[in-house]
Amino acid sequence: MRDVSIIGIGQTAVGEHWERSLRDLAVDAIEAALKDAKVESVEALYVGNMLSGELVAQAHLGALIADWASLGPIEAMKLEAAGASGSAAIRVGYMSVASGIQDMVVVCGVEKTTDTDAKTVNASWSFALDGAYEASQGLSVTAIAALLMRRYMHEFGVQREDFAPFAVNAHQNAVNNPHAMFRRPISAEAFAGAHMVVEPISMLDAAPMCDGAAAIVLCPSERAGEFASKPVHIKASAVATDRLAVHSRADPLLLRAAQVSAQKAYQQAGIEPHDIDVFELHDAFTIMSALSLEACGFAERGEGVRLAQDGDIAIGGRIPISTMGGLKARGYPIGATGVYQIVELVYQLRGEAGANQVECQLGMAQSLGGSGATAVTHILEAE
Amino acid sequence: MRDVSIIGIGQTAVGEHWERSLRDLAVDAIEAALKDAKVESVEALYVGNMLSGELVAQAHLGALIADWASLGPIEAMKLEAAGASGSAAIRVGYMSVASGIQDMVVVCGVEKTTDTDAKTVNASWSFALDGAYEASQGLSVTAIAALLMRRYMHEFGVQREDFAPFAVNAHQNAVNNPHAMFRRPISAEAFAGAHMVVEPISMLDAAPMCDGAAAIVLCPSERAGEFASKPVHIKASAVATDRLAVHSRADPLLLRAAQVSAQKAYQQAGIEPHDIDVFELHDAFTIMSALSLEACGFAERGEGVRLAQDGDIAIGGRIPISTMGGLKARGYPIGATGVYQIVELVYQLRGEAGANQVECQLGMAQSLGGSGATAVTHILEAE
Repeated sequence: MRDVSIIGIGQTAVGEHWERSLRDLAVDAIEAALKDAKVESVEALYVGNMLSGELVAQAHLGALIADWASLGPIEAMKLEAAGASGSAAIRVGYMSVASGIQDMVVVCGVEKTTDTDAKTVNASWSFALDGAYEASQGLSVTAIAALLMRRYMHEFGVQREDFAPFAVNAHQNAVNNPHAMFRRPISAEAFAGAHMVVEPISMLDAAPMCDGAAAIVLCPSERAGEFASKPVHIKASAVATDRLAVHSRADPLLLRAAQVSAQKAYQQAGIEPHDIDVFELHDAFTIMSALSLEACGFAERGEGVRLAQDGDIAIGGRIPISTMGGLKARGYPIGATGVYQIVELVYQLRGEAGANQVECQLGMAQSLGGSGATAVTHILEAE
Repeated sequence: MRDVSIIGIGQTAVGEHWERSLRDLAVDAIEAALKDAKVESVEALYVGNMLSGELVAQAHLGALIADWASLGPIEAMKLEAAGASGSAAIRVGYMSVASGIQDMVVVCGVEKTTDTDAKTVNASWSFALDGAYEASQGLSVTAIAALLMRRYMHEFGVQREDFAPFAVNAHQNAVNNPHAMFRRPISAEAFAGAHMVVEPISMLDAAPMCDGAAAIVLCPSERAGEFASKPVHIKASAVATDRLAVHSRADPLLLRAAQVSAQKAYQQAGIEPHDIDVFELHDAFTIMSALSLEACGFAERGEGVRLAQDGDIAIGGRIPISTMGGLKARGYPIGATGVYQIVELVYQLRGEAGANQVECQLGMAQSLGGSGATAVTHILEAE
């Protein structure tokens, strides 16, 4: 099995792109990544996307985007794993290069939510849940997160306001990210007074649905130096799943897929959690940040919130998270998100993160699908 | 890179499963495949499906099916490439084993079309086309196939009735397939008098949308003998794409993706088309059978129809196709189809195809997405 490196990255701004179509966004990100890698052709394209059929009446994104990006008659297909679709596509790109089957691959995550109405977006997002036993009962992804947050507050004796540092940190970090959707800081007071979405989740707990596309170029590590002055090595790649419906899980506050995929990744990389210098996690809701930190071994059960309160998650802290704004403030373009996380980690590991630079050698990204039933974890290393 | 073999196969009957859900069908196929392989656990599940979001309000099939098949917290995700989704999932399963990342993988193709109305099924199927330039103009997959058939008739001086042998052969072969949807023979006269769908395509040119699930178990070839008495070796696996919209193609009657992916596969296998003993092709419409045979080197341009008329495509002929009924008579459960093709080839290569047995050592399967913009080709070999 060959080592795989990232030699190029590209992204569009995250937000509401009323004037650009899904295919436009994908092509923009791919062209930027190919330019960054100084590569003109690739052998395969793997697309991460969750809802193009439901939201823009378009499936078959592999062929569509290969066509519109003028990549030639290359291999192309789409990966879907709900909110983890983008990182699932990276996983497949990684396997294709690691196997020796492909030598140059582009992975693109893309989502377009503004071409339809909010009702359709919300209804379709709930397809990430168990349709027969959760969504059909009226549960949404947000409603399940609210149940988990309420249970966490009950179980560990914390208050809603204790989750503020996750949102404050994300918004603070987005200020310096030109691609972020919300480039303004928020205060703990604003968090405390924010409008409720599904109690106890407010507008400032929840990440926004939006549009965006991000892309990365992969090649065998042994050839990475030919293209990139600062290639980034994929040191581990792991996927795990959990029971889809939260009510089927023995312990709803344990994100088992996140835990198992992180453990697999640590084992592949031969490291422990404390070796990770920066962690891009799936902060679709503040509660998911707390649960992710706990599942991945950065905090004991029930201590994730305290980690945030102690400032450990800030740039300069023990385990910086959401360093470019995270899902909360960079934005959550569903199936594109996992690729944005990797693009941001590459900035960090190249030392190109500007005012948000973390001192780092090893970074981890983890994407979740639905209420955590899929987790995809990658560990990256500066070369 | 490791060689990969198929050590287990499973399938549900193809048809209208009013009493079974998508997840039920998938679990049935997976359990049958694991039983056939005498394997109790796997490390990953790759699901091929096109339209579960649109038709049954359910995405995130990787986690859902891993959960309902009790496969544990394994890696799982969904692949989509329109009508080639099932074979795209096989492609990823193949890469994951070839790379050395996984040692035991199950691939499942599944589609459920009967849980919604025909209008939704037809509208969603058109998401395989270019939404902005084809589907939005009112074109459907069938309408494009009709344009291609009309052009073929004009270009090569053949009549609608000349396509009859493709449908007659498929229906004849389905008679002996207990899993097929239409187990009755049809005559050339019935074909000539069949009701029109989109002229010149009639009911007997077009494959039926339906429900079904099929699964295969993959492992490294060097270990296949531990599990299967008759493992089948994946000698080649290749994917190619074409311009998505037919009007963008320089020659609409050349299926370039089919041609490129077949050529890649022949090269990997070190063989020529005449070495292939049996060919499961994507006969969604009779015209697609003719074009596939030509693109893959079994007939000269414009000669695909004559190949059928000469009896070369029948069991015992020069290049038997649709040996278990093909899409036309076994049925076309969209995203499951590519896996059914491989299951049927495995029967042939194991010598277990009963009355439909072809004398064979090498078999090829090719799945198409949309109007041929994606083609996935696998060549299998009896071990």
